[in-house]
Amino acid sequence: MPDTRVEIIRRLARKGAGPALERALGKSRPQDVATAIAHLAPAEQRRVLAGIADLDDAATVLSTVDDVDRVRLVAHLDFERLVSILEHMEVDDEADLIAELPVELRERVLEAISDDDQEHVEDIMGWPPDSAGGIMQPLAFRCSESDTCRDAISALHEQAEDLEMVFYLYVENDQEQLVGVASLRQLLTHAPSTALKDMMISDVLTVGPMTDQEEVARIVSRYDLLALPVVDEHRRLMGIVTIDDVLDVIQEEAVEDMLLMAGVGDELDPADTSVISAARQRITWLLITLVGGIGMAELIGVFEGALEKQAVLAGFIPVILGMGGNVGTQAATIAVRNIATGHLGTDGTRGTAKVLFRETRVGLLLGLFFAFSLGTYTLLRWMDQPMLGAAIAISITVTVVAAAAIGTMVPITLNRLGADPAVATGPFVTTGIDAVAIVIYFGTCVAMLGL
Amino acid sequence: MPDTRVEIIRRLARKGAGPALERALGKSRPQDVATAIAHLAPAEQRRVLAGIADLDDAATVLSTVDDVDRVRLVAHLDFERLVSILEHMEVDDEADLIAELPVELRERVLEAISDDDQEHVEDIMGWPPDSAGGIMQPLAFRCSESDTCRDAISALHEQAEDLEMVFYLYVENDQEQLVGVASLRQLLTHAPSTALKDMMISDVLTVGPMTDQEEVARIVSRYDLLALPVVDEHRRLMGIVTIDDVLDVIQEEAVEDMLLMAGVGDELDPADTSVISAARQRITWLLITLVGGIGMAELIGVFEGALEKQAVLAGFIPVILGMGGNVGTQAATIAVRNIATGHLGTDGTRGTAKVLFRETRVGLLLGLFFAFSLGTYTLLRWMDQPMLGAAIAISITVTVVAAAAIGTMVPITLNRLGADPAVATGPFVTTGIDAVAIVIYFGTCVAMLGL
Repeated sequence: MPDTRVEIIRRLARKGAGPALERALGKSRPQDVATAIAHLAPAEQRRVLAGIADLDDAATVLSTVDDVDRVRLVAHLDFERLVSILEHMEVDDEADLIAELPVELRERVLEAISDDDQEHVEDIMGWPPDSAGGIMQPLAFRCSESDTCRDAISALHEQAEDLEMVFYLYVENDQEQLVGVASLRQLLTHAPSTALKDMMISDVLTVGPMTDQEEVARIVSRYDLLALPVVDEHRRLMGIVTIDDVLDVIQEEAVEDMLLMAGVGDELDPADTSVISAARQRITWLLITLVGGIGMAELIGVFEGALEKQAVLAGFIPVILGMGGNVGTQAATIAVRNIATGHLGTDGTRGTAKVLFRETRVGLLLGLFFAFSLGTYTLLRWMDQPMLGAAIAISITVTVVAAAAIGTMVPITLNRLGADPAVATGPFVTTGIDAVAIVIYFGTCVAMLGL
Repeated sequence: MPDTRVEIIRRLARKGAGPALERALGKSRPQDVATAIAHLAPAEQRRVLAGIADLDDAATVLSTVDDVDRVRLVAHLDFERLVSILEHMEVDDEADLIAELPVELRERVLEAISDDDQEHVEDIMGWPPDSAGGIMQPLAFRCSESDTCRDAISALHEQAEDLEMVFYLYVENDQEQLVGVASLRQLLTHAPSTALKDMMISDVLTVGPMTDQEEVARIVSRYDLLALPVVDEHRRLMGIVTIDDVLDVIQEEAVEDMLLMAGVGDELDPADTSVISAARQRITWLLITLVGGIGMAELIGVFEGALEKQAVLAGFIPVILGMGGNVGTQAATIAVRNIATGHLGTDGTRGTAKVLFRETRVGLLLGLFFAFSLGTYTLLRWMDQPMLGAAIAISITVTVVAAAAIGTMVPITLNRLGADPAVATGPFVTTGIDAVAIVIYFGTCVAMLGL
């Protein structure tokens, strides 16, 4: 159903502006309009945004489209319309958009929006974009400790315009400190004369504005919260992070991890980036691979004498490198995952030693199994050279154990150093393991086969 | 703060049961108790679960711990206590747990729980675990079209016990069809005499019970919903999927994709799986790599004559394979990601051809750049053999273009065939690209160098 709607908008937008497009836009959910925009050419995108009559809808569309499309759309937007759309956005989205603007336009926009909005936007923009302060919604439903349910309900009436996504009501004492929380449901099921103090939950989980958004997501998801209050050092309520924003954070972080693991930067939509910029985003890791590969050519060159006597040794290079690389990547993935879930890292060095010992044993088990398989193949294939089979078996075992250990240690070390452990599954580690594997392999063969 | 709490529980549980442990458990959030359990030995885990006096807390703990721990804990739980804990769980978690039980125990438990619970649990268990029906909460806050706000509020009072996470009230007509939805906030801000019909939103997004949980997550996140109703073919409300469950789905799927991409099965917690079972989970993909590697040894064997004449050719095997593998994995990651976001696949073959053309051009650009770098290195290093540099440059270009095309096509094809495209970043594709790369490389060298 939404997909036909997207189809209709795309068709109309391609034909040109007009009342039919405006009617279709008026009948569509803004999220579907945003999806349609992703498939359109820049001129058509502008036509669609211009055709949205409802400012709330236009605000949702502009908050929902991809960053690249948004920047392009905003650049062509008339100043007055931009300001009206911004004033209909949720404050956190408004702050994100204003932060993306060129400095001069940003100043003009901040001057033009309402004083309230300006204050809230500046509250958010003062914090890093991936911190609790940077993703919070400064508007929250606040009541005083001395209020009753009746007071709270009438306050809700008055603030109805400004508040979005209200689930909880935050109770403050006369020093404006957060002392409790109550749900709308409690308001409905308690007598109007009940004091908030008597029904609120006073053991409230909170975070500070500098808490990382991943930590915020972890707390919201772990304790099944709908919103998490952000408080300052005096426990005064600064804003709330709502679960729908947490959903975005989790998706964003998962995608980031995945793209990071493959070394493709933040290239998301093939329609959005040019071929040249796509190539540029991918080139870093490929350059590491290339430099690593040249190093490998030099390293293998050291053993050229052995290769001239035994050309068959070249044939095992792929299997040795492939097994090492895969075992290393698997160990690194497990480590990255366990760091992310908090299973690794809380225990300090004792936990690390335990995990490393375990991964090494897994590697040894796998190594022995593959030594047996690959050794048997080699023995049967080159029956006249039994030492070749033995040398291959020994090198694969040592390589796999080393790869498991390296793959485990690199993400743990990166995490300790404050870097993102997800980088560890990339070409740095694979290239390192490759070099170790080549030295193990040729070293063993030269020693055992007397080359 | 929660981390010290986890620490206290762990210390007390290791010392043994006792009133100190029970007091600490009574003062802790059940989610923290679940985290503490992850770090304990099986006997200590049982001691902790036994020490939780509050049945609601025990239910949350048991729903929150890892699958492996849960199965082990339940196996040692006294039948009466198991039934009481189940009756305090949210119905969807209750159904998940009962589905995990051995058949005989499952039958006994279904007999022992209340008739209402049994009915709801069976409602959920009838659907696949990753469908909307399998993750829905059958209890929803329902009212009739003819009710007023006052009626709804008093209904909420009566149902207060059973309902968890109430955000919306679902309005049904006299054929029990879902006709609208209203928020608790609307109940609070409208006059008690307002008819629900007059304030509800009647354009309600719904899904069927067989809708995949990933699709449910996409809808909830796209439209910023707190809950999504599941309806049968007559549009009768069967249950709702709430945003906190969607959060779990998104995390689960992201982790699944990541582990799938590295071929490590569903091995999550190093403390939970034995070394042997960890090795077993990882072995499938390594076996593919091994078999692929043996194939590669045979393939290179074909060119043994060339290698005997030019041992230096062996040195370039890693860089050719490494570049091909990385470019292929990057292209596959982009394709998997674009399938997941819906950017790829909606357009049918036209979109595919466009993406393939684009990726091939990115590959060509990268290939030419690397041909230049690697070719220059080779020319400078082996100045007496200019044709070697040319052969290397041509092979790397062709390999990289082929890798980009293969990496793009495999996930798209897998998706068409109904398989999970994330598998494409694994050793299947890398091994395939390896074989193609070796043939391109040695073929070009043999032809150009006259070996």
